[in-house]
Amino acid sequence: MVIIMNVDATAAEIKGVIEAVNGAGLEAKVMEGSQQKIVGVIGDKTRLASVPIDALPGVEKTVSISKSYKLASREFHPQSSVIDVAGVKIGDGTPVVMAGPCAVESKEQLFEAAEIVKAAGAQFLRGGAYKPRTSPYSFQGLEEQGLKYLAEARERTGLRVVTEVTTVEAIDGVAEYADMLQVGARNMQNFGLLKEVGRCGKPVLLKRGLAATIDEWLNAAEYIMNEGNPNVVLCERGIRTYETYTRNTLDLSAVAAVKHLSHLPIIVDPSHGTGKWRMVKPMAFAAVAAGADGLMMEVHPNPAKALSDGPQSLTPENYQEVMAGIQKLSQFMKQENIVPMDI
Amino acid sequence: MVIIMNVDATAAEIKGVIEAVNGAGLEAKVMEGSQQKIVGVIGDKTRLASVPIDALPGVEKTVSISKSYKLASREFHPQSSVIDVAGVKIGDGTPVVMAGPCAVESKEQLFEAAEIVKAAGAQFLRGGAYKPRTSPYSFQGLEEQGLKYLAEARERTGLRVVTEVTTVEAIDGVAEYADMLQVGARNMQNFGLLKEVGRCGKPVLLKRGLAATIDEWLNAAEYIMNEGNPNVVLCERGIRTYETYTRNTLDLSAVAAVKHLSHLPIIVDPSHGTGKWRMVKPMAFAAVAAGADGLMMEVHPNPAKALSDGPQSLTPENYQEVMAGIQKLSQFMKQENIVPMDI
Amino acid sequence: MVIIMNVDATAAEIKGVIEAVNGAGLEAKVMEGSQQKIVGVIGDKTRLASVPIDALPGVEKTVSISKSYKLASREFHPQSSVIDVAGVKIGDGTPVVMAGPCAVESKEQLFEAAEIVKAAGAQFLRGGAYKPRTSPYSFQGLEEQGLKYLAEARERTGLRVVTEVTTVEAIDGVAEYADMLQVGARNMQNFGLLKEVGRCGKPVLLKRGLAATIDEWLNAAEYIMNEGNPNVVLCERGIRTYETYTRNTLDLSAVAAVKHLSHLPIIVDPSHGTGKWRMVKPMAFAAVAAGADGLMMEVHPNPAKALSDGPQSLTPENYQEVMAGIQKLSQFMKQENIVPMDI
Amino acid sequence: MVIIMNVDATAAEIKGVIEAVNGAGLEAKVMEGSQQKIVGVIGDKTRLASVPIDALPGVEKTVSISKSYKLASREFHPQSSVIDVAGVKIGDGTPVVMAGPCAVESKEQLFEAAEIVKAAGAQFLRGGAYKPRTSPYSFQGLEEQGLKYLAEARERTGLRVVTEVTTVEAIDGVAEYADMLQVGARNMQNFGLLKEVGRCGKPVLLKRGLAATIDEWLNAAEYIMNEGNPNVVLCERGIRTYETYTRNTLDLSAVAAVKHLSHLPIIVDPSHGTGKWRMVKPMAFAAVAAGADGLMMEVHPNPAKALSDGPQSLTPENYQEVMAGIQKLSQFMKQENIVPMDI
Repeated sequence: MVIIMNVDATAAEIKGVIEAVNGAGLEAKVMEGSQQKIVGVIGDKTRLASVPIDALPGVEKTVSISKSYKLASREFHPQSSVIDVAGVKIGDGTPVVMAGPCAVESKEQLFEAAEIVKAAGAQFLRGGAYKPRTSPYSFQGLEEQGLKYLAEARERTGLRVVTEVTTVEAIDGVAEYADMLQVGARNMQNFGLLKEVGRCGKPVLLKRGLAATIDEWLNAAEYIMNEGNPNVVLCERGIRTYETYTRNTLDLSAVAAVKHLSHLPIIVDPSHGTGKWRMVKPMAFAAVAAGADGLMMEVHPNPAKALSDGPQSLTPENYQEVMAGIQKLSQFMKQENIVPMDI
Repeated sequence: MVIIMNVDATAAEIKGVIEAVNGAGLEAKVMEGSQQKIVGVIGDKTRLASVPIDALPGVEKTVSISKSYKLASREFHPQSSVIDVAGVKIGDGTPVVMAGPCAVESKEQLFEAAEIVKAAGAQFLRGGAYKPRTSPYSFQGLEEQGLKYLAEARERTGLRVVTEVTTVEAIDGVAEYADMLQVGARNMQNFGLLKEVGRCGKPVLLKRGLAATIDEWLNAAEYIMNEGNPNVVLCERGIRTYETYTRNTLDLSAVAAVKHLSHLPIIVDPSHGTGKWRMVKPMAFAAVAAGADGLMMEVHPNPAKALSDGPQSLTPENYQEVMAGIQKLSQFMKQENIVPMDI
Repeated sequence: MVIIMNVDATAAEIKGVIEAVNGAGLEAKVMEGSQQKIVGVIGDKTRLASVPIDALPGVEKTVSISKSYKLASREFHPQSSVIDVAGVKIGDGTPVVMAGPCAVESKEQLFEAAEIVKAAGAQFLRGGAYKPRTSPYSFQGLEEQGLKYLAEARERTGLRVVTEVTTVEAIDGVAEYADMLQVGARNMQNFGLLKEVGRCGKPVLLKRGLAATIDEWLNAAEYIMNEGNPNVVLCERGIRTYETYTRNTLDLSAVAAVKHLSHLPIIVDPSHGTGKWRMVKPMAFAAVAAGADGLMMEVHPNPAKALSDGPQSLTPENYQEVMAGIQKLSQFMKQENIVPMDI
Repeated sequence: MVIIMNVDATAAEIKGVIEAVNGAGLEAKVMEGSQQKIVGVIGDKTRLASVPIDALPGVEKTVSISKSYKLASREFHPQSSVIDVAGVKIGDGTPVVMAGPCAVESKEQLFEAAEIVKAAGAQFLRGGAYKPRTSPYSFQGLEEQGLKYLAEARERTGLRVVTEVTTVEAIDGVAEYADMLQVGARNMQNFGLLKEVGRCGKPVLLKRGLAATIDEWLNAAEYIMNEGNPNVVLCERGIRTYETYTRNTLDLSAVAAVKHLSHLPIIVDPSHGTGKWRMVKPMAFAAVAAGADGLMMEVHPNPAKALSDGPQSLTPENYQEVMAGIQKLSQFMKQENIVPMDI
């Protein structure tokens, strides 16, 4: 941490800062020029977590230097992690695909979707049984019945199942039926939920919050990992900006940023990221070319009848085209040794 | 809802849209010009919640017109609500003040803060027992012990207690000790939590999410009210923008917007809204002048020793100055009939 | 400036950084811990402007500490500036008001507006002769004819005239007719224009850019001042955020921030800041309570016939109500010594 | 346009709106339900540009439906445009590359850079002679001397030259030396500049504004095209968001959006888009996979000595790797008929 003092900070104020730093068991080093007075702090930043340096007399502001997450950081775990979800490996160099309807609506819809998803070569079936919706009057999901359909669809197809959990109470049920638990964007800082999915033993797909920084996102992963669960996969799904043409602004540079900062795999959801099915294909191709470890996409047997997120769902035909393209692209990149990120 | 068709939408596509609208029991009206084809939908929008009009062939986009919330809307409840919290009225024309430390740190700290808060004329003591923190390694709050200190401080001072609840499991405990439950910014769309605080019977202070639109915020209030709890007070606490000088950008225009759209009272938190104690006074004055129904402010007996949010906490002296100013301003505005909002 | 080195930076890389810093005539100081290596730089930051420290081998990132503007900074000019515009003082403790139509549309419209503006006690007439519009097909202003009407309106009413200049070529003409030149939000970083208005000798009203940080805004003021023109008044007019209910998000905390960082006066434009006439009154009151040095507001004899920005224009009646309120509020605050900002 | 009336709008107010619409020569159609009253407007929206419908009594808000740009719109020009810049075609299916230093610093630096740029297969040399800088004390460019070096470098290498023009006065000079004029992000709504580059006859590279919507960007192109210059190429260079890890947030979905809305070619600048050289390669690959018509990248013979934007400049080695990757990717996609966008 670097502490910037006011231009007119007194010697006593600087002394007070040094004492506070030393009091936390850390070393302080003063740099003084004609216009600037800086106190550098060397050591484990977590020791300063409970010392409000910013509020000490004479302090203008503090600048954080080290990262507040550790388990999720590449500094402490230089090698990229590969997460095994019921035998499917995420992060091993071949992008995985998680596809399916936004919400589980009926047995027929889900089974039909699962067949389509499977046929084109995806590894995971997605589908919400618990749906977080802006309005209490929108369709909230089939809940436990939806989980059962997902499990049945897995038996029929051999696909792994990933589905969202929105409350602590639902974790046991979701963990019973699903292979991977998804924490959605709206719950990325629901710390109670993060801790509990950290304890449940199943791999977790952690979506980026609506307006979360990459730093906050990796700290959210840290909450899960700190409970003993190292099996976290991140999912970029678009951030909130001033642009209204797209539902969100898909931040593909987050793929490169996360690869640099963390060892955890990262996948991309171009369906929520853009909100328009027409943009899913180009963004899926872009995600693969940027080095993403996988994709999550919405596909619906009949998008025009979807109970949730119809406009961003692919038809079976679109979906097959996307799948064919990303498979060719990723194989070509591997074969030609085209490496997006030098870590 | 207004449905904008593609420029080259066919007659069959327009017919398909009309049938979908009629199928939901609503009336459709077509308007056609040389460059535009529009289908207007008249009726209860919630009936369309499960029809993905956007995904129908030939549809360019849909534009929502009516609001998705009802109980929170002024259209359905033209008169401003006054919420009674253990005898203190919020929304009756005199701004209430909720003040105290960010976090309950110890009995001594809290009692000292409570005396200061009370002496200057506030009605509520605030203080977090459960703290949602970005990093799992930051101070997480004293939890139940903190609640007990808050209840003791209430007995000593007569102040009402408002404190945050972050998990469904903690609701009963918080409701036992507190007069008002706060749902924090990070949990504004934790719908499971919203439903449960809606059922718990206590008044709720609902903070605006970090990047929540006013529409989403009022929908979050709707979740609480829809469970039978009409006692919701909103709290503007700054939104996330590109500006880094302040911790958040305090959106005081939200006071006017909420007054126009909703009958619920709204208060302002300039401490989190700016992240700098120096800016609390001007923003508190501004909030009162804009017509806010109250303020939430952080005050700490010794900000330089605060375990959380020290830089934005007022010293007892600052706080007394702020209190004196807002009391004078609000009395003057009442007496001179200076009305910020014509609703 | 503080230079954060990579965790695994070598001794040679640190040496390289020190040499680069010394090469620019500055002193470097190294702080090294187990997880962090930092190089502090002491001295005049402008000397490093042409040294790309960030790109040196082993450097993770640099953190700027001192401000890049000087003439606009309170550090170099502790006393608040009072700007004299043809005898009207801005920044002397009494808020000034600049009011009028968005655009000059006709002699009649402008003269009628000017009478209304004058009658209620404003000091400045505003009105665009050159209008920057998103679409080339929107009304672009009456140009020189508009300037002449403004000058005539000044003669009839005694109001000062402030109007926007959008091109270097138009500066001389605008300076001939107006008392104060406005640089609009879209031109805040049109550096050629800034330099020329810096040379033209007239006071300048510098609006904040659509998405400008406070730091960039003060640097834009620095461009003007650096050409020898110290008479700059800043105007907060709302920033671009994800919120769509308001046209922009009025950042009233910028008033407090600017007062702390700079000696220049700052006024607030609640008309553009909100885009809704209904919100102008509460935001005008809030701006005064926050300590703004003045207000800019749109008022139109008949908003329903305005050629530009009708929805945000006050009717003459609204305007008189706003004026009465802000005059009472500001007098009361002065008389009671209610000081929003302790600088 | 769709006009949403207040819930309690009177018959007289609705009549007033209809008359205003008819008065502009357009047809109005009323839709009335129990909770909603809507007036649809059919016809050429530009006719309403000077009628402030929003300000009419009883109007809640208006919703724009048709686009305000025409010449830039795919609706009026369904086939994709190919722009010829001194014989190099942009938009013909093979991505072009514009590379070079951020700023022209010296003859030696530029010539060295040009050789590197040429050797790896780019078509354009970029390099700023006029630099728009946040601070007046930063390096502002070599101005005319820089233009001469660029022209000399063209003669030596056969590369086309693209360089930024920041003022109307400089247009003639830049047009004399360059093959393509760049309008930078800060000037995207400098309408005087847009009009003049529209008249100068040379092809224009129009960068997206710091916080411009896609709609505003296409309207900026419309300003240029409306002066008779159809040769506009768009350049996505990142938008301003709350995320601070990257300099901007590169919005690759803008490639797909622009392809859908407009016939103009679009290229991507991952150097400014991310601000970090490490992220240029993955984002360049992603841009090509998303269907971009080209790339603009910063490369410097020695980034550690660059006078501007060192941290985001590629070394010659990085650059060659990026070039090799994008050439392979784009050839493979063509050969395998992997089409990112179905327009």
